[in-house]
Amino acid sequence: MTAIHGRKQSALSEFSRTEKRGLYKAIYKRRDVRGHFLPDPVSDRLLRKLLDSAHHAGSVGFMQPWSFIVIRSPDVKRQVKDSFEHANAAAAKVFEDEKRELYSKLKLEGILEAPINLCVTCDPSRNGPHVLGRNTIRETDVYSTCCAVQNLWLAARGEGIGVGWVSIFEPAQLKRLLQIPEHVIPVAYLCLGYVREFLPRPELEIAGWLPRIPLEDLIFFEHWGEKNGK
Amino acid sequence: MTAIHGRKQSALSEFSRTEKRGLYKAIYKRRDVRGHFLPDPVSDRLLRKLLDSAHHAGSVGFMQPWSFIVIRSPDVKRQVKDSFEHANAAAAKVFEDEKRELYSKLKLEGILEAPINLCVTCDPSRNGPHVLGRNTIRETDVYSTCCAVQNLWLAARGEGIGVGWVSIFEPAQLKRLLQIPEHVIPVAYLCLGYVREFLPRPELEIAGWLPRIPLEDLIFFEHWGEKNGK
Repeated sequence: MTAIHGRKQSALSEFSRTEKRGLYKAIYKRRDVRGHFLPDPVSDRLLRKLLDSAHHAGSVGFMQPWSFIVIRSPDVKRQVKDSFEHANAAAAKVFEDEKRELYSKLKLEGILEAPINLCVTCDPSRNGPHVLGRNTIRETDVYSTCCAVQNLWLAARGEGIGVGWVSIFEPAQLKRLLQIPEHVIPVAYLCLGYVREFLPRPELEIAGWLPRIPLEDLIFFEHWGEKNGK
Repeated sequence: MTAIHGRKQSALSEFSRTEKRGLYKAIYKRRDVRGHFLPDPVSDRLLRKLLDSAHHAGSVGFMQPWSFIVIRSPDVKRQVKDSFEHANAAAAKVFEDEKRELYSKLKLEGILEAPINLCVTCDPSRNGPHVLGRNTIRETDVYSTCCAVQNLWLAARGEGIGVGWVSIFEPAQLKRLLQIPEHVIPVAYLCLGYVREFLPRPELEIAGWLPRIPLEDLIFFEHWGEKNGK
């Protein structure tokens, strides 16, 4: 069986050992970066490369629902940061005791420090009202947009660019600030830039916020809850 | 400036030229596979590798909300296929004239042919009611799950495994079939297996369903709609 797979892989996947290593390296060494941004500019050419990687994610019905708002203006960043701070003050209150104390110590965004902020949006109306494959699960356009974000995140890691996903905003306020039309969804607000370091493990894991779940606990066979498959 | 970036990249990103090529190859040569599955089995070891790649996506508040239901039983696949066919008959009717004719010719899933089906779910209740970073945008747990799917999709491409995302189901019916608890969301239903070929471009692009949007049309600066930044 191994021999069969070996043959198939060389004939079809066309990935050398080193190429595969690059792919897995991006997957395992990608981090959500908050506190390690450097001010060094990211070139337009490299930014375009990252956006093109996002644009080559699959999308439901090939609708390509995403747009990218590139933010470099300190004024706009400041407004977004204010919006974050407002939402974050409220968010901290839901945690109790040690968790709240730990929460207050965590740096959760690099909006002002990162040279580039990027809002990735989803336009559910793109390419007409009917989208192939979106008839029963309307959210698949947003799902596609998230796949685009992950492509960008991995490509960025390969280029030594850190990315941090900031999700602590009132979406309505973010839409107002960035003049996003009513029907468009701001799916991800990302901070991008060169970094001092990529941490060896996720920051929240290192900080003791939550542990990594063993993979085996997450796998079922045939139906939810069934563990006896192989 | 190029020199600065060159230095930074070698010091921090640690990706060789060939490793980067592997990463971009996965991003650009990944396909949504429907009609090209081979019956050859995928080893448990390789499947685990793909699931572990998914498990190393970032997640909001490190909540790791995903679970994986691995489906190999022909009976379960048959039930899911019936569910697809029911939803697809309804979906075809929303398109008119040439689009409907083209739709009817497209193969949209490989449920029975693919040796492995995989349902990737999101449990919004995992790790307690309060999730760091999910206070204002509740859907961020589902967004994280989509990032996990993209990791798996790219890793699979590197291994010569095709993946097809089937989204034409009534979610309630799929949940019943797979015995998924009420509060858990079946985000993605994927078909996995070795393939005869990976098409050079997305199948819907080749079929003339929709064209690729020029990247430039999707980029704004500072605010939605602003094209004059750089």
